[in-house]
Amino acid sequence: MNILLTLAYDGTNYCGWQRQKNALSVQEVLERVLENFFGEVKTIATSRTDAGVHALGQRVSFNAETKIPLGKLPQVLNSKLPSDIVVQKAMEVSHGFNPRFDAVKKTYCYRIHNAISPNPLIARYSAFVPERLDLERMRTAAAFFEGTHDFAAFCAAGSAVTSTVRTIFECRVEQNGEIIEIYITGDGFLYNMVRIIAGTLVYIGMKKPLDAAKIIADRDRKNAGKTMPARGLTLIDVILPI
Amino acid sequence: MNILLTLAYDGTNYCGWQRQKNALSVQEVLERVLENFFGEVKTIATSRTDAGVHALGQRVSFNAETKIPLGKLPQVLNSKLPSDIVVQKAMEVSHGFNPRFDAVKKTYCYRIHNAISPNPLIARYSAFVPERLDLERMRTAAAFFEGTHDFAAFCAAGSAVTSTVRTIFECRVEQNGEIIEIYITGDGFLYNMVRIIAGTLVYIGMKKPLDAAKIIADRDRKNAGKTMPARGLTLIDVILPI
Repeated sequence: MNILLTLAYDGTNYCGWQRQKNALSVQEVLERVLENFFGEVKTIATSRTDAGVHALGQRVSFNAETKIPLGKLPQVLNSKLPSDIVVQKAMEVSHGFNPRFDAVKKTYCYRIHNAISPNPLIARYSAFVPERLDLERMRTAAAFFEGTHDFAAFCAAGSAVTSTVRTIFECRVEQNGEIIEIYITGDGFLYNMVRIIAGTLVYIGMKKPLDAAKIIADRDRKNAGKTMPARGLTLIDVILPI
Repeated sequence: MNILLTLAYDGTNYCGWQRQKNALSVQEVLERVLENFFGEVKTIATSRTDAGVHALGQRVSFNAETKIPLGKLPQVLNSKLPSDIVVQKAMEVSHGFNPRFDAVKKTYCYRIHNAISPNPLIARYSAFVPERLDLERMRTAAAFFEGTHDFAAFCAAGSAVTSTVRTIFECRVEQNGEIIEIYITGDGFLYNMVRIIAGTLVYIGMKKPLDAAKIIADRDRKNAGKTMPARGLTLIDVILPI
């Protein structure tokens, strides 16, 4: 049976989703718990989130036979998982369904704390920006990211992708008091793409003379803003064809 | 010069505000940083928050002579403090002003995550309650805590206070999606009082047959709800006569 989990985690203490030799990953912690119940399993996740990145709606599949009702599985697994990793849901999916390659859309949120002083109760899940950000400038620029574009300017060096063309369905900037959230939904993302788009929108919000449309068109990483820290990034949700 | 700081901290990794022999306190970390600049100092805080309790508006005073402008002091101190302790503000107060004994009102917030599944991005700053809570019942009961009462039923054993009478100016229950927040403003609080009031309101929200007015009148700790976990509690603000 192919089982699909919806997984939430605080990424602060992990080297990211994917297993690594010398650092603790979310995948390793989850697989260790799954192996208590199902023997050896190999999990596949929709997004291989980086070190320090959080998730609310990560999807993870694995093959296993079990008599545990899937409605009870989250509770059973959560009783063995550390409190910073939580299984929200478990369901059966068709044989061969792959949450990484079959995902249709993913939504990330980049969260900025825009205030005079840092707030330690927010710092774990946001980037602190003390310069006052102009929300209207950020919103105007965000619209230029929507659509199908070559996002070569928003890709960290060292990634080996065949195409840097991606489709962004929505890039929306929300404000709630001192919190500014950038929601980006796309069919896929290049390495560090959301964090570089967030960094570009932050520069634009600081009134630096950056032109989002021109940065996209020129396809040069040097023109875009800096990569924002991982702790502000959360994988919010994944749309699957099921 | 008597200097008053407004201090915010994530209490997760500390044994509370007050110095202890075998565990790390917020006071010890702050005093170590202050001593880099001012030599030996002795700090006084408004609230001696317990292990795991957070603060946004803690007030802390100490005596020191400095040429650092007080407007710059937060930035200077924050550069040496760990990221879970942040000085928000520094100001001069009159000689002999004592933020513990001179505080007029304190506001605490107890935060509950009322949902089917835990959320690891909220868990550090809230208590998870999966049973659906009836907000109207909680609000009706909360009103009974307002006023001047003998709160003996809401005081943990082992505290050596001369009087268990306190005045609660406001006890308000707010809801925002899956988050329920209980805001309590009072002239002072007994040991664990806010966490026991929160536990009583949670029981009432679960429709257990508890009568807030009768629990107060009977002055017996056994009749009240359980003490809720520290991580849901935050000292929000302090009103001082300045």
